[in-house]
Amino acid sequence: MRIQLINPNTSADMTHAMALSAQSIALSTTQIIACTPEHGPKSIECAFDEVIASAALLDLIEQGKQQGVDAHIIACFGDPALDAARELADAPVIGIAEAGFQMASLIAHCFGVVTTLSRTLPASEHLLQKYGYQHKCSGVRATDIPVLALENIDPAAYLLLKTECLAAIEQDGAEAIVLGCAGMSSLVEKLSAELPVPIIDGVVAAVKLAESLHQLGLQTSKKGQYGQRVSKAFTGRYAHWSL
Amino acid sequence: MRIQLINPNTSADMTHAMALSAQSIALSTTQIIACTPEHGPKSIECAFDEVIASAALLDLIEQGKQQGVDAHIIACFGDPALDAARELADAPVIGIAEAGFQMASLIAHCFGVVTTLSRTLPASEHLLQKYGYQHKCSGVRATDIPVLALENIDPAAYLLLKTECLAAIEQDGAEAIVLGCAGMSSLVEKLSAELPVPIIDGVVAAVKLAESLHQLGLQTSKKGQYGQRVSKAFTGRYAHWSL
Amino acid sequence: MRIQLINPNTSADMTHAMALSAQSIALSTTQIIACTPEHGPKSIECAFDEVIASAALLDLIEQGKQQGVDAHIIACFGDPALDAARELADAPVIGIAEAGFQMASLIAHCFGVVTTLSRTLPASEHLLQKYGYQHKCSGVRATDIPVLALENIDPAAYLLLKTECLAAIEQDGAEAIVLGCAGMSSLVEKLSAELPVPIIDGVVAAVKLAESLHQLGLQTSKKGQYGQRVSKAFTGRYAHWSL
Amino acid sequence: MRIQLINPNTSADMTHAMALSAQSIALSTTQIIACTPEHGPKSIECAFDEVIASAALLDLIEQGKQQGVDAHIIACFGDPALDAARELADAPVIGIAEAGFQMASLIAHCFGVVTTLSRTLPASEHLLQKYGYQHKCSGVRATDIPVLALENIDPAAYLLLKTECLAAIEQDGAEAIVLGCAGMSSLVEKLSAELPVPIIDGVVAAVKLAESLHQLGLQTSKKGQYGQRVSKAFTGRYAHWSL
Amino acid sequence: MRIQLINPNTSADMTHAMALSAQSIALSTTQIIACTPEHGPKSIECAFDEVIASAALLDLIEQGKQQGVDAHIIACFGDPALDAARELADAPVIGIAEAGFQMASLIAHCFGVVTTLSRTLPASEHLLQKYGYQHKCSGVRATDIPVLALENIDPAAYLLLKTECLAAIEQDGAEAIVLGCAGMSSLVEKLSAELPVPIIDGVVAAVKLAESLHQLGLQTSKKGQYGQRVSKAFTGRYAHWSL
Amino acid sequence: MRIQLINPNTSADMTHAMALSAQSIALSTTQIIACTPEHGPKSIECAFDEVIASAALLDLIEQGKQQGVDAHIIACFGDPALDAARELADAPVIGIAEAGFQMASLIAHCFGVVTTLSRTLPASEHLLQKYGYQHKCSGVRATDIPVLALENIDPAAYLLLKTECLAAIEQDGAEAIVLGCAGMSSLVEKLSAELPVPIIDGVVAAVKLAESLHQLGLQTSKKGQYGQRVSKAFTGRYAHWSL
Repeated sequence: MRIQLINPNTSADMTHAMALSAQSIALSTTQIIACTPEHGPKSIECAFDEVIASAALLDLIEQGKQQGVDAHIIACFGDPALDAARELADAPVIGIAEAGFQMASLIAHCFGVVTTLSRTLPASEHLLQKYGYQHKCSGVRATDIPVLALENIDPAAYLLLKTECLAAIEQDGAEAIVLGCAGMSSLVEKLSAELPVPIIDGVVAAVKLAESLHQLGLQTSKKGQYGQRVSKAFTGRYAHWSL
Repeated sequence: MRIQLINPNTSADMTHAMALSAQSIALSTTQIIACTPEHGPKSIECAFDEVIASAALLDLIEQGKQQGVDAHIIACFGDPALDAARELADAPVIGIAEAGFQMASLIAHCFGVVTTLSRTLPASEHLLQKYGYQHKCSGVRATDIPVLALENIDPAAYLLLKTECLAAIEQDGAEAIVLGCAGMSSLVEKLSAELPVPIIDGVVAAVKLAESLHQLGLQTSKKGQYGQRVSKAFTGRYAHWSL
Repeated sequence: MRIQLINPNTSADMTHAMALSAQSIALSTTQIIACTPEHGPKSIECAFDEVIASAALLDLIEQGKQQGVDAHIIACFGDPALDAARELADAPVIGIAEAGFQMASLIAHCFGVVTTLSRTLPASEHLLQKYGYQHKCSGVRATDIPVLALENIDPAAYLLLKTECLAAIEQDGAEAIVLGCAGMSSLVEKLSAELPVPIIDGVVAAVKLAESLHQLGLQTSKKGQYGQRVSKAFTGRYAHWSL
Repeated sequence: MRIQLINPNTSADMTHAMALSAQSIALSTTQIIACTPEHGPKSIECAFDEVIASAALLDLIEQGKQQGVDAHIIACFGDPALDAARELADAPVIGIAEAGFQMASLIAHCFGVVTTLSRTLPASEHLLQKYGYQHKCSGVRATDIPVLALENIDPAAYLLLKTECLAAIEQDGAEAIVLGCAGMSSLVEKLSAELPVPIIDGVVAAVKLAESLHQLGLQTSKKGQYGQRVSKAFTGRYAHWSL
Repeated sequence: MRIQLINPNTSADMTHAMALSAQSIALSTTQIIACTPEHGPKSIECAFDEVIASAALLDLIEQGKQQGVDAHIIACFGDPALDAARELADAPVIGIAEAGFQMASLIAHCFGVVTTLSRTLPASEHLLQKYGYQHKCSGVRATDIPVLALENIDPAAYLLLKTECLAAIEQDGAEAIVLGCAGMSSLVEKLSAELPVPIIDGVVAAVKLAESLHQLGLQTSKKGQYGQRVSKAFTGRYAHWSL
Repeated sequence: MRIQLINPNTSADMTHAMALSAQSIALSTTQIIACTPEHGPKSIECAFDEVIASAALLDLIEQGKQQGVDAHIIACFGDPALDAARELADAPVIGIAEAGFQMASLIAHCFGVVTTLSRTLPASEHLLQKYGYQHKCSGVRATDIPVLALENIDPAAYLLLKTECLAAIEQDGAEAIVLGCAGMSSLVEKLSAELPVPIIDGVVAAVKLAESLHQLGLQTSKKGQYGQRVSKAFTGRYAHWSL
């Protein structure tokens, strides 16, 4: 099968890193097609960034649909534009936050989330509420490490990240940790080795869920909320969306 | 004071109609500056439309900010990009759904919402949950009248709308009705005359709330979630947002 | 328009102070009619006080109705007898807690409440739940300053109040503060000048909402829960209520 | 032990009827002291009635306290002034709605409530939420029988009541019925004989809970919310409450 | 009446101790029939223990049913197998956690729970949610005293228990304490004497509720969820359950 | 990898049928080890059945652990003994209800559940609440087909099942259907072909999740709630559990 792995920010380095993570966990018969938008923010760290990235992200979903991919992954922890992408796509669309929460809930009674900027805490809490995992989350902790600083993380930042994970475990009672940024995907192995609870990266979790849905023959339901978008005219830089 | 009234869809006729509603209710010292985006969908009727409209809407918020307006109103019932707009703006930003729910809750124990397409029901329910009005809402009803058909509504469509309002009152126990589309703003007078409960239009409600906040000297809190957006590079068609 | 501003406790000084606040924010065409009950507690600081004050408060609502006022404001943070008053009145009735929560939610992602006695904390939490703002409140803090000590607040008590506001901001993450007592109305200007987030006084917020509803032509819905009270005999000191 | 059974409305006939019910179920060592307020509404059927009745009810609580009763029962399904009464009293204070919900939850997975006027439905729902029984209630149904018509119920009204009980069982899935008015206390035997699920009357349930608390040596906690009311002056017809 | 008091663990000493507590509070006309299962864990301290104890417990319920007891009490704070027991029994079945929560909610605005091992905290929280008391609980605290160490509690362990009760009162704001283990039943008198809030033992609370239901003539509803179990074959060590 | 597929009821035919389903979807490198308990009910259709089956099920978990399986699946829609099994096992333990809900939530905005007896409805609702999927479920519908009648389903029963699925879609707005019994696993293909929305069988969903967790290297967290069970003596028919 072919999985489109969308990095919604415009950082090609981050796209490359998460593609490596994804390919390493994928079945040998799974092809990861990683992509980066042409238009949008270098990283996604507030609601403003997310809105701008979301519009550009939909171009990639359409491109993946034209290529006939079997699943789309939105690899940003805010799961931006997930509902819109599911309207657009026929194949399943998976957000890495939802994927991470699902895997965590199968192996732990409660999990913590460790993320980047404090600014993004309400976004994480909103997702926990939207998906129904609020009661399973022991808390969301911010490291205040900027997203792009994760790419080649320095020892001090890594220590900060690990320290917040430990605080989640010891102070909040987290029995597993969901990493709150796609940029942390490359750190999951090291953190897993050094921490006493399972560490969950949404990127690789999403890859396995995409494969699972494909093997189960399950596609996005096109009846109801995720039905085909309504036909209408678009103008200006979105004129290509007219239907 | 000056209020920027943003119609997030690209229908200039609808912008004109809601500007008339807004000006008619505004204080004589209030100037309504209505505007329409250059880019985006002709109407907003699903999550896809909302994502695309949201990116274009932020250009208008920035434009209003440059003009020094005293408040921004987002006049689409999905309150698209509200959080992002509040990050961007210093003046208050008001969504018409939140405005309508607030006014309704002051005069009724529970209210119904009557909206356009069935497709938008989950969006309305999501807003009720986000703002905390779920327990005060007796139900959301769709008329399946397309947004643009509201502009010069024909008698059959009007009857459909009125019938759903009556069903909300008689069957669901609604004690007031919140109209679920900015395009219904011109119908509020006629519906109020013909129905036994208060009818609330979010557009005019938002105008009064904008004036209220201005007179109270209250601005968007820039500490926390609505603080200034994070500086970073944007590429492609969003390069103008680089900071 | 004429707004009846009801101070539900029998402290005439407090009535006078809140009338000044209210008149200072009102439109020039708005007349504030402040009133104090003949019967009841000097201040409202526990459930017992609230029950006693509620019965007396309804006499004032009836008096305002006879005078043909255009709106009633119940200026005590417990919003006592709000539902009963809405049954009795035709004009809108606004509680200052609900007014404060509404205004706060338009300009901040979450707000704190700073109130008087610890005894009143459950009452505040009950109102947050009743109105649906629990998830938007970062916490309610008591200063343990008695209500009447707010009238001519001494520097130590003011410092205590300001300190709790700061704790709400720094420790709880409050992005705005709703003042939890009508007696704090005269302090809002000073607190606003000294604190880094918007400070919201429910008394003035209620005045603007009352004006807004009046200009929108919205009255209390008399269909359903707030319909006219049921006719029946009353005896003893409440015989005047027989209908 | 001595239990003060307070009928918060001024109908002496109803007080008499519920005293009979209470005494019939009480232990031989329990004395029921039934009482009727001097001041207030003939029946309690809306929020207005409840507010007026609540003030008068507290005089009776104080009177019971002076008499040294071992428990107080507030025998109106709205549980009026319950928190205030608990502040005032040292002995336990039990509301019949809470008592009914507790007993029902011990013998059924979910229960229905059948009450008097439709107007009181929001009050019942509010109590279910306040006490935490919302998820155990299959629905609240109104018969629109006025409270006082229950005293010497005619066959048509009884049939109406029984029909709503059956609808609660068959349509809503109620596994037990809580009667939503103290005035229904005399009907519980007949309804129990004719209906296939347990029928619960809050008045007798409250008597047993009062005896239980007494035998367990449990009194109202005076630490926290139900601590002694705050000392202060009261004026006018409430001057006797000054402390 | 006859009450079957089931200790679901196999510790006969604990059964004896709780029988003493129960008999001491029971009416003179009430006979307590205490029993201990033949099969199962010595104490119940995790989900595993609870599952194993639950199967054995049902044999005792059946035995009590054969003996024609008037009520069954499940005297373990996890209320194990409560729903299954109610299916099996005709007489009421009461769990001590539900009993304790009910009594506490009648005399305090919020209560704390003090229990044994930290491991059992999620179980207590699950019960609070299941019964609807989450909003009335100020917190659950573990002492990490093993269940069997409660039998002849040493001074150090008693001090630990008392210290957690005090922390619940002072730090969490508990206005009453529900003891979170049937093994604490013998300590309630001493704790009550030494602590400033009511202390509630679910065992004795359940006895009074069982008597109350009996005197009210209320039995488990056999319509719906607690209806007679479905007839079918059982094999192996459960073959005796075939119906 | 090796997956232990546990049918918690004692029907060997059903075990065989679900093993076929599981093996057909499994990767070629996955071995399905299906097993049936020696002791317990022939089918699980009420709380009583579930309690008895749960004790026997844990013997199978222990047996799988001794065999060193890589994952355990509990193939009964009530997810019986899931928490206890996770305490016992080191490998992940997956319940088919949780698995079905997770897969459904990835491809539909809301899903319906179609199950066997009406008696099991509260159990399904309890699981939806426990896992956090209540707001995503459009309703649970019972067919009142006994579990064992699913094995060689007759045309009338199949039609009944399909009819309830259609009602879930058309009347409740279900966008996907989760089948509420492991015995329906063999019907998923036929139902999928005949119905307009995705049909989800928890058995095969659980197989893919088990493979996913294994490939991700994720095991049950042994820190916290799912830590190793507490050591103690067991007596009688459970003496083998003594530790």
